[in-house]
Amino acid sequence: MGGDFAPRNVVAGAVEAMREAKDRLEVLFVGPQSVVQEELHRLTENNLNHQIVNAPSIITMDDGAMAAVKEKKDSSIAVGVSLHKEGAADAFVSAGNTGAVMSASTLILGRIEGIGRPTIGAFFPSEMGVCLLLDAGANVDCRPQHLYEFAVMGTIYAREMLMLPNPTVGLLSIGEESSKGNDLTREAYQLLAKSRLNFIGNVAGRDILKGKASVVVCDGFVGNVVLKFAEGVLDLLKTKFRNHAAKNVFSKIWVGMMSRTLRSVMKDFDYQEYGGVPLLGVNGVSIIGHGKSTPKAIKNMILKAEEMVRKNITGSIRDSLAAAK
Amino acid sequence: MGGDFAPRNVVAGAVEAMREAKDRLEVLFVGPQSVVQEELHRLTENNLNHQIVNAPSIITMDDGAMAAVKEKKDSSIAVGVSLHKEGAADAFVSAGNTGAVMSASTLILGRIEGIGRPTIGAFFPSEMGVCLLLDAGANVDCRPQHLYEFAVMGTIYAREMLMLPNPTVGLLSIGEESSKGNDLTREAYQLLAKSRLNFIGNVAGRDILKGKASVVVCDGFVGNVVLKFAEGVLDLLKTKFRNHAAKNVFSKIWVGMMSRTLRSVMKDFDYQEYGGVPLLGVNGVSIIGHGKSTPKAIKNMILKAEEMVRKNITGSIRDSLAAAK
Repeated sequence: MGGDFAPRNVVAGAVEAMREAKDRLEVLFVGPQSVVQEELHRLTENNLNHQIVNAPSIITMDDGAMAAVKEKKDSSIAVGVSLHKEGAADAFVSAGNTGAVMSASTLILGRIEGIGRPTIGAFFPSEMGVCLLLDAGANVDCRPQHLYEFAVMGTIYAREMLMLPNPTVGLLSIGEESSKGNDLTREAYQLLAKSRLNFIGNVAGRDILKGKASVVVCDGFVGNVVLKFAEGVLDLLKTKFRNHAAKNVFSKIWVGMMSRTLRSVMKDFDYQEYGGVPLLGVNGVSIIGHGKSTPKAIKNMILKAEEMVRKNITGSIRDSLAAAK
Repeated sequence: MGGDFAPRNVVAGAVEAMREAKDRLEVLFVGPQSVVQEELHRLTENNLNHQIVNAPSIITMDDGAMAAVKEKKDSSIAVGVSLHKEGAADAFVSAGNTGAVMSASTLILGRIEGIGRPTIGAFFPSEMGVCLLLDAGANVDCRPQHLYEFAVMGTIYAREMLMLPNPTVGLLSIGEESSKGNDLTREAYQLLAKSRLNFIGNVAGRDILKGKASVVVCDGFVGNVVLKFAEGVLDLLKTKFRNHAAKNVFSKIWVGMMSRTLRSVMKDFDYQEYGGVPLLGVNGVSIIGHGKSTPKAIKNMILKAEEMVRKNITGSIRDSLAAAK
């Protein structure tokens, strides 16, 4: 029931995912039985491997982050995460209330030993491919140790899921020298420098898109501001092009022809391709999707979850923290 | 002698400024006499109102922020700011070492009474025109009172220089509610809410470009990260378009035709239009330009300085702080 277009897009995306990964995927649809049933009826094929698990109540965007673990224990978020905890499901994905998914996942699944703060990242297109920025809003006030943990988790994700052999880690700051930045970054710099990570030092805002580092760590306040700003850039460009098109008939024709090129250029900026962002640091696989998720985004989110399970990302994080001790 | 293309671009831009504002502008060129003389010789016309003030030493980008006030007191930055302090000049502009210009301006001109931290802002294009973000990197660690001061100065600048009758002020954060954000923003929210400013509450990263507020305040760490990220967006778009053009001859033709449209669309992103950013909060007018300043950027920077003097921005800030007491 998560996201602005649930259950339609969620069900449609899940059906696509099952078609694409037939032999290695079973989907448990968690939500009000009849609503999901009806939606599935419109779409599904006979030979797709799925079940419906009834969860009568719904967490809306207006509900607080603790709703799933306090008032609405029979919501799709609470029931779904619990299924994962009990082992009936190997992963949980949702395009619903981000705060609620995060708290439910953290509290029900628990944190991996050695992780103080589970984190959600954001994927940025870069000149070198993709850059994973952590934290993107889950943890507003961070200590240096948290940034180090983000770097460990980001490195594993980048290596296993983005297929980068020895991912570089950058610390988001405002100048290259270790002395530049604020108290948090200066202390985090020292922790990262003496770690076994492939730490390349401070990186600036522009280096995110340059792909100077594959993994960039920062506190969730800064990360969220940058993420939202990036979304704003795309909106502004669209508006500017539209206004330009309105000027006269010739501009209109140009802009019409240009939009195809622009779309192709912008493809890397498209969150649908990434599907969602993993909550790293919990005992399990929990992926959070955009509220406006399209069927394609949902499909990619589910396939990403299956891949994270198959590659045992959670286990790698656990091992890596144990080894660093 | 400031910037990557000094003295050529600096002199060329100043000559253009004098041509454009003939009757109300006299330029004092501060730098090594012979170098400036030679450059001027190539360009100047007889009836332009200017002088050369000798300043033999040069502050490079490698010099520390204190160089102008400590080791190199005969540099163009130190001499130029001192001319302003003594009243021989009404304003100072430079495309040189940002840190050096800031320290020299702050220490030589002094802070306006009631201002704890002078600030430099950045101009962002927005759907509503332009958004002034303060602080853009001068003050990494800020207290709530500093953010309030930035809001006062930004409001006056937006009203007098950007011609906005009653500029709105937003506090950069990660959610609309006053409780969202970090300790700094939560406390600053209270200060701004009880002020006489046109405070509209928290704004998110994407609201900068939406123009939800004319003035957006934040600490200099966050502001600088966003500013540098925005510069990176333009670089990435250029690279993407170039790569697209390389694909085949048809894309090449399209991209060629598109680049004109893109340039027009991007005009608002162009720092040259703004010329430079004022250091607000010092007793005087000091404008800092981009190291890569073109003659056009230098020209606009000088004209902006003349306008700030004519409109007595410094006096308005002084009065406004006195009234708020």
